[in-house]
Amino acid sequence: MKNILLTIAYDGSRFHGWQRQPSAVTVQGFLEQTMSRLFRREIRLEGTSRTDAGVHALGQRATMRTDIGIPTDRLARVVNNALCGREEGSYAVSPVRILRAEEKPEGFHARFDASGKKYIYRMSPARPDVFRRNYVYFTAQKQAGAGLDISAMQQAAEALKGTHDFKSFESAGGNPRLTTVRTIFDARVIPAAEALEKGSASRLGLQPDEVLFEVSGDGFLYNMVRIITGTLVEIGQGKRAPEEMKEMIEAADRTVAGHTAPPYGLYLAEVYYGEKTHGQQTQLG
Amino acid sequence: MKNILLTIAYDGSRFHGWQRQPSAVTVQGFLEQTMSRLFRREIRLEGTSRTDAGVHALGQRATMRTDIGIPTDRLARVVNNALCGREEGSYAVSPVRILRAEEKPEGFHARFDASGKKYIYRMSPARPDVFRRNYVYFTAQKQAGAGLDISAMQQAAEALKGTHDFKSFESAGGNPRLTTVRTIFDARVIPAAEALEKGSASRLGLQPDEVLFEVSGDGFLYNMVRIITGTLVEIGQGKRAPEEMKEMIEAADRTVAGHTAPPYGLYLAEVYYGEKTHGQQTQLG
Repeated sequence: MKNILLTIAYDGSRFHGWQRQPSAVTVQGFLEQTMSRLFRREIRLEGTSRTDAGVHALGQRATMRTDIGIPTDRLARVVNNALCGREEGSYAVSPVRILRAEEKPEGFHARFDASGKKYIYRMSPARPDVFRRNYVYFTAQKQAGAGLDISAMQQAAEALKGTHDFKSFESAGGNPRLTTVRTIFDARVIPAAEALEKGSASRLGLQPDEVLFEVSGDGFLYNMVRIITGTLVEIGQGKRAPEEMKEMIEAADRTVAGHTAPPYGLYLAEVYYGEKTHGQQTQLG
Repeated sequence: MKNILLTIAYDGSRFHGWQRQPSAVTVQGFLEQTMSRLFRREIRLEGTSRTDAGVHALGQRATMRTDIGIPTDRLARVVNNALCGREEGSYAVSPVRILRAEEKPEGFHARFDASGKKYIYRMSPARPDVFRRNYVYFTAQKQAGAGLDISAMQQAAEALKGTHDFKSFESAGGNPRLTTVRTIFDARVIPAAEALEKGSASRLGLQPDEVLFEVSGDGFLYNMVRIITGTLVEIGQGKRAPEEMKEMIEAADRTVAGHTAPPYGLYLAEVYYGEKTHGQQTQLG
């Protein structure tokens, strides 16, 4: 019995989220069905994160326990060809791709052993072109052309760092028995033009009108990144002061924070195991 | 009665092409239905090009003759809000957008008065990431990592320039009574990295692994750009010599040319009226 850890990229725009559902097309369901057919036995995945419908992944992780004979270093290639629905050499590109497969000790679990995650959120105060409608949040305002105050957003993001109770940034639906305390390793608001100059974000297909929010931490509450993003947008639009971020955290009350930004701007960028290597560069799958 | 010329961008991946069809979602049908409902009268468009299913547009053109009272300079904004399916201030982004609306003399026709068009084709010898599967042609080869010989493709593209019979590059389905002679103004094969450095193509969301084919001319036969692209890919892969392009043109026989590249890498970039301003920079909508 092998225990294989997969790194997975997907375009979430055509899926009803990660988690298997009986009557909706999900990323987990698509992967499990494709692999079960390919390997002629039931394949079950344990994913790290239940991403919502429309949310994308550059580096989702999932473990599978299986007795398939195929060498692990060939698994990604074989599964990716099957995901394209055609034979090797196909010209098709699937919305889901296995980026890496590696064997782990028997007890290793993609979710329980994760020490943290990194998310990226793409937004733009300019109306994105028709090709980015499922990938970038348009932070529309009444006054056409009004931008986002990046330095105010950066100042507010600083207040997120460290260990806090993030109850104000959790949607209903979270487990009420569990703690809402989380540690944020890093939180940055970056103009895409700056990220493009450094070359680090070129693989995301970013365009200069965009603003990125990158956040890493040991865990995130339900919709936490989207509520934080919505709050940062309101700060960037001048509707709230940057100093309010600290107060909102301290209030521990969802009603004081901003709106929930839409799912399609959100990317699960990276999952950390063991030491928190949250400085490393994220590669787009 | 006003005669209004529209410039239109669209993501073709969700549409069965431009042209209205009784039981399929098309760009023309979506625009006509939305505007007819909005203006409470039947709106009919005359488009410049019947783009195929999956083909995109940065600058499709269409004329509409109408007696609507709304000032032409406000038309794009009002229609774009309706295309988003919501009121003004919406956060949604539609797959179709009116970039410009301008009044033209009564006899002006979007197709018959066009003096030429420009197309862009995006391809990559590296498997594009999951987010580009509907936008870039993956020119797969058996040997993983095999690239495209850009200078061979550039040499072959030179042979396209000028006035030739392009019968070898026409799919069945073209009108057999009409001439297959066309004039190509310009034809270029450009590494995306080079286009990105110049900044000219940044709005396309290009990534450095891509290769662009840009071609402008007074007209194009059915599937002509896609067959030329497929032929250029075969030259770039070393399956044909660059010198063969001239021979293929002279043969005037579809069977001698290369394969038809898929629709989703193709962008109708620009339509020219009057003087052939084919040097001007294309803006992504």
